[in-house]
Amino acid sequence: MKDFKKLFLIVLSFYLLLYLFYSASICYAKSSQIEQWGVFEIALKGPSSGNPFTDIQLSAVFTKNNRTIKTFGFYDGNGIYRIRFMPESTGEWHYITSSNCLELNEIKDNFIVVAPTKINHGPVRVQGMYSFSYADGTVYRPIGTTAYAWIHQGDKLAEQTLQTLAASPFNKLRMTVFPKHYEWNNNEPLLYPYSGTPPRIWDLKRFNPEFFQNLEHRVQQLGDLGIEADIILFHPYDKGHWGFDRMPAQADDLYLRYIIARLSAYHNVWWSIANEYDFLKEKKPSDWDRFFQIVESNDPYGHLRSIHNGSIIYNNTLPWVSHASIQNGSAVEDYARAILYRDVYRKPVIFDEVKYEGNIPQRWGNITAQEMVKRFWEGTIAGTFVGHSECFLDSHDIIWWAKGGVLRGQSVERIAFLKKILEDSPNEGLEPIDKWQNCPFAGKRGYYYLGYFGESKPSEWLFSLYKAELKAGMKFKVEVIDTWDMTITPVDTIFELNKPRSYSVEDKNGRSVPLPSKPFIALRIRRIP
Amino acid sequence: MKDFKKLFLIVLSFYLLLYLFYSASICYAKSSQIEQWGVFEIALKGPSSGNPFTDIQLSAVFTKNNRTIKTFGFYDGNGIYRIRFMPESTGEWHYITSSNCLELNEIKDNFIVVAPTKINHGPVRVQGMYSFSYADGTVYRPIGTTAYAWIHQGDKLAEQTLQTLAASPFNKLRMTVFPKHYEWNNNEPLLYPYSGTPPRIWDLKRFNPEFFQNLEHRVQQLGDLGIEADIILFHPYDKGHWGFDRMPAQADDLYLRYIIARLSAYHNVWWSIANEYDFLKEKKPSDWDRFFQIVESNDPYGHLRSIHNGSIIYNNTLPWVSHASIQNGSAVEDYARAILYRDVYRKPVIFDEVKYEGNIPQRWGNITAQEMVKRFWEGTIAGTFVGHSECFLDSHDIIWWAKGGVLRGQSVERIAFLKKILEDSPNEGLEPIDKWQNCPFAGKRGYYYLGYFGESKPSEWLFSLYKAELKAGMKFKVEVIDTWDMTITPVDTIFELNKPRSYSVEDKNGRSVPLPSKPFIALRIRRIP
Repeated sequence: MKDFKKLFLIVLSFYLLLYLFYSASICYAKSSQIEQWGVFEIALKGPSSGNPFTDIQLSAVFTKNNRTIKTFGFYDGNGIYRIRFMPESTGEWHYITSSNCLELNEIKDNFIVVAPTKINHGPVRVQGMYSFSYADGTVYRPIGTTAYAWIHQGDKLAEQTLQTLAASPFNKLRMTVFPKHYEWNNNEPLLYPYSGTPPRIWDLKRFNPEFFQNLEHRVQQLGDLGIEADIILFHPYDKGHWGFDRMPAQADDLYLRYIIARLSAYHNVWWSIANEYDFLKEKKPSDWDRFFQIVESNDPYGHLRSIHNGSIIYNNTLPWVSHASIQNGSAVEDYARAILYRDVYRKPVIFDEVKYEGNIPQRWGNITAQEMVKRFWEGTIAGTFVGHSECFLDSHDIIWWAKGGVLRGQSVERIAFLKKILEDSPNEGLEPIDKWQNCPFAGKRGYYYLGYFGESKPSEWLFSLYKAELKAGMKFKVEVIDTWDMTITPVDTIFELNKPRSYSVEDKNGRSVPLPSKPFIALRIRRIP
Repeated sequence: MKDFKKLFLIVLSFYLLLYLFYSASICYAKSSQIEQWGVFEIALKGPSSGNPFTDIQLSAVFTKNNRTIKTFGFYDGNGIYRIRFMPESTGEWHYITSSNCLELNEIKDNFIVVAPTKINHGPVRVQGMYSFSYADGTVYRPIGTTAYAWIHQGDKLAEQTLQTLAASPFNKLRMTVFPKHYEWNNNEPLLYPYSGTPPRIWDLKRFNPEFFQNLEHRVQQLGDLGIEADIILFHPYDKGHWGFDRMPAQADDLYLRYIIARLSAYHNVWWSIANEYDFLKEKKPSDWDRFFQIVESNDPYGHLRSIHNGSIIYNNTLPWVSHASIQNGSAVEDYARAILYRDVYRKPVIFDEVKYEGNIPQRWGNITAQEMVKRFWEGTIAGTFVGHSECFLDSHDIIWWAKGGVLRGQSVERIAFLKKILEDSPNEGLEPIDKWQNCPFAGKRGYYYLGYFGESKPSEWLFSLYKAELKAGMKFKVEVIDTWDMTITPVDTIFELNKPRSYSVEDKNGRSVPLPSKPFIALRIRRIP
């Protein structure tokens, strides 16, 4: 009996220990049910002594049937470690952790992944050669804007920015991780990414979890609005003020691994390795290759990866670049310029910076709304994508391009109008109809043609299309689009094709489309059965 | 005594044998003195049985001090093997052969390399990022033309072509190795590259040395005129007529090794892997990479390597591409288009095909002389190089672009005029002065500006330059260039700079340059001390 009691106590102690062990280590798994492409999170209690950011290695392997995905954990402060996972398919998943810290090692569980909510289409992927789609196959046509340092301005302004975005056509936002020190943006940020004493003394081995929690919260909020967060990992708008633009290589790499561990499970994350990368004068060209490689090998989901140039364009043909992110102040003034990048890269091209609508003295920040809208259209008929931002001077220095807030320009509603037109265009994307021949039409040969006349003011357009995929007798309807006044006017005539000539084919009665002799006119031509 | 006689006879026999051996194997070394960048040639007698093209391996190592260069030999028919070598420095060189055929093995000699003649500046190299120079440092500015199949038309026409070239501004000629089968060029060639029965039955392991001797003779003649031979190794203008566009990989590779062994010692050789490479539908994309690699590893001198596109541009960022050879029918209509290729490739860009002056029905072969000249100027102020050709219909189907002969167009003399202007421009090449800002000036900031107004007809030009490298008080003289009428008119005024503004700097008295209100006007602006 005494032996039995002893055994009982031993067993009890064992279970008690086991209970204590688990209650200490598994803080929570956010939910035992999670939606596809949602953020599944394991939170574990662990050591807070030493330097948990560098001393502890933590990862987990997630398994469903024959597929396993390894993802890295991170220290989130206060003795809490987290591992995040974005399940790419529904069903039952298992995980097991791995760590050099015994109490974080070999923790396992399973969970159920259910179908996603309507707003969550999964991460954006390259589709075909020049287009994008969400993981669920829904077409994604980037219509981006820029508010570099919006997360660093405090809650009030950030919430206003989100409201503005919610009412806007934009589905991508370029934003920096590190704070920005630049004209009209000399305020210190809400939070700093590292432990230390602002503005210059940092422990580059100790992150400030609160800083990253704020970032994640904003990324999540963008995701809830259906907006992709184009996260700029490095930028030159520091110039040594804090020194985040000139950290040693070891700190750069640690930062990248940390932010990837924290953010890659968010479906709406895009990685922009840097903004104006070539203006970060403390970096070597090979650093950028290394950063791409770190991102590529640490992000288990292959989120889109790009790098934005100042005056020297990165070699976007390299395999780790998913799409070209171009700054060029003149390329989308003319679709025939924009097309050239497409041909060279054979990847999607996003002109993320094409000068901004506004009234600041800098020439990159004072184009008219008309010019901004024109650039969107020229880029569109080149089969590329164009990005927006705004630089209107403000008495409180709240400029959308830097801090967010409200939009004041006249281009946004016209960009929304273009977006609607694109939503009704072929899913495969718009292909230049007759490349390198000064043909201002893109679309899908034989079916859909979107043409744009820019600043010229024609009074008519002879119905004449490049002959590829066309045959005598085919019928087309035409709409005249005023891209500035935002009207779509159907043309009464049904056009019927003549026999194709050497290069072109005309209407069998040689008819023209009357046009309003105004600038910024487009044509939409669709085949009818 | 008898023993002595015996010994004498033995020794004599030995020397006799030695003599016979050498007289049989060393046919001749063209000269014991050779000029730098000339063709040093060893000719050896060897077996003519079996298949000497594939059975015999032959190479030589050339040595001077610490430098050795290995070069491959080739069979030239009639039992003659040749090894060619282009010495890149003066002084005493040694060589020793190596072969799997005993009588061709370990033949050695030395020879003296002397300074080159005035016309021979050595092979053309890339200089800096976007320019070229000869090996001796002389600037080389490509002004090319195209006569694809000129070597296949017989001596009379070829000699006329050479005379035309001698009187022209052209210093580069694009030409095919294989004959061409195309509209206006359906005649059979003078010679065929392989043994066999025309048009289709070929022994792809037995070359026709006479064919290659003709090719070399023409390359040599071009070199004597100071013209680079841009040798097109593959092209699609065969379409199975002879089948040289669809040989098996082994035959392609054997052909490349053979032609490289024969031609690489000619200083004026450039390798164009293919013309309209993507129109060779029987080839895979990886074939082109392999061809580049074979050329790179077999040519000991690193002659320039490029590949010309149809509608899909090869990845010219790859390391084995020395410069971009672009076909684009619209890129040089606008310097701001042309610049984009430069930025992307960070290599010299030659627009080898920009449509041709002429009157054939095809849209690529009927631009006006004005348009041709304009394209040269637009390309020039983009910091790139443009190529010419002509397609004028002829009662005997002798069109320059295909067969050579005479030039009939009006662009050539204007291209010669541009060439003269370039000869007086900075050696480093012309850099766009204010890239991506619609600034029609190239040159060297602070010193030299070449501007071009294209088809617009301004009556004056406000003296205003991008501010980089400029300071108040600097003085400039201006010349007005009529690029069509070929006049250069100095402006009397000396312009003196005001204080630079945000982006530009003007004359201190706000003066303008009067212009003749004609199209195709250029400006040359040079700083004076």
